[in-house]
Amino acid sequence: MKMVIAIVQDKDVSKLLQCVTRVGLRATRLASTGGFLRSGNTTLLFGVEEERLEGLLSTIRDTCHQRDEMLTLAQPIMGPVDAHIPFPIEVPVGGATVFVLDVEQFIKV
Amino acid sequence: MKMVIAIVQDKDVSKLLQCVTRVGLRATRLASTGGFLRSGNTTLLFGVEEERLEGLLSTIRDTCHQRDEMLTLAQPIMGPVDAHIPFPIEVPVGGATVFVLDVEQFIKV
Amino acid sequence: MKMVIAIVQDKDVSKLLQCVTRVGLRATRLASTGGFLRSGNTTLLFGVEEERLEGLLSTIRDTCHQRDEMLTLAQPIMGPVDAHIPFPIEVPVGGATVFVLDVEQFIKV
Ligand code: NI
Ligand code: NI
Ligand code: NI
Repeated sequence: MKMVIAIVQDKDVSKLLQCVTRVGLRATRLASTGGFLRSGNTTLLFGVEEERLEGLLSTIRDTCHQRDEMLTLAQPIMGPVDAHIPFPIEVPVGGATVFVLDVEQFIKV
Repeated sequence: MKMVIAIVQDKDVSKLLQCVTRVGLRATRLASTGGFLRSGNTTLLFGVEEERLEGLLSTIRDTCHQRDEMLTLAQPIMGPVDAHIPFPIEVPVGGATVFVLDVEQFIKV
Repeated sequence: MKMVIAIVQDKDVSKLLQCVTRVGLRATRLASTGGFLRSGNTTLLFGVEEERLEGLLSTIRDTCHQRDEMLTLAQPIMGPVDAHIPFPIEVPVGGATVFVLDVEQFIKV
């Protein structure tokens, strides 16, 4: 049994939890702030059998990897009337920091 | 030294903490949600000497094991007056997920 | 790679995070209560390379060790007018509980 501690961005949490729930894995969600990632992250605790570890890590990579997303800002135009031009920019989102620890005993009571 | 990470139901936390405090153990309580157990759980972090590990696990089993509890609902009776019949049902409560990890160094500063 | 789990008093957190950030280390901050220390503590999660472990532990010792601080209370004087004498006392503050765990895999995605 391994414990996977994944620090992921808040915006990726629900997609990740959907994917792992679909394959029967469970996560505990700890409130966390700052640190490894830009603000707004969640620390997830998973317990997995060794043979399922790679699958979980793949799912984390797939759902949380860092990527650029288009964000459309409305840029104000200086002039006699208040107007805005839609202004698309690319911003990096996502990314996760993942630790795998060995579990000596795993008990359900 | 071992680290015990126990995810227990909120309703079992105070009884468990009373029991472990009585034998001189300490726990740190992390805010947590969802996951291994039905909603409303708490993640507890314990540091214990190897010779006290079994005692701690027994205490967790004793105070948090899954069991049925009688819950008395008030069932409304359809009729000319608003009346209720006490209606006892059995609901499963408790249960805990426990991970034991090896601690390489334990330091008090 | 090692994981360092440090439970420190709230009042020492910002100084510690400043010090570790200055040397390029990151921490994730978990909301926590009670337990190993008097109320008002924070659980910090660090991932460090083995060669930087001793430096991190020194920084935790330096910024969080238990020490006495002077606290000036205003003691009321019983008398015809409401008066107070400044009354300095020494109170113990700080202290940290630190666990070092081995990390089998560390992944950034
Ligand atoms: Ni992609
Ligand atoms: Ni029982
Ligand atoms: Ni000092």
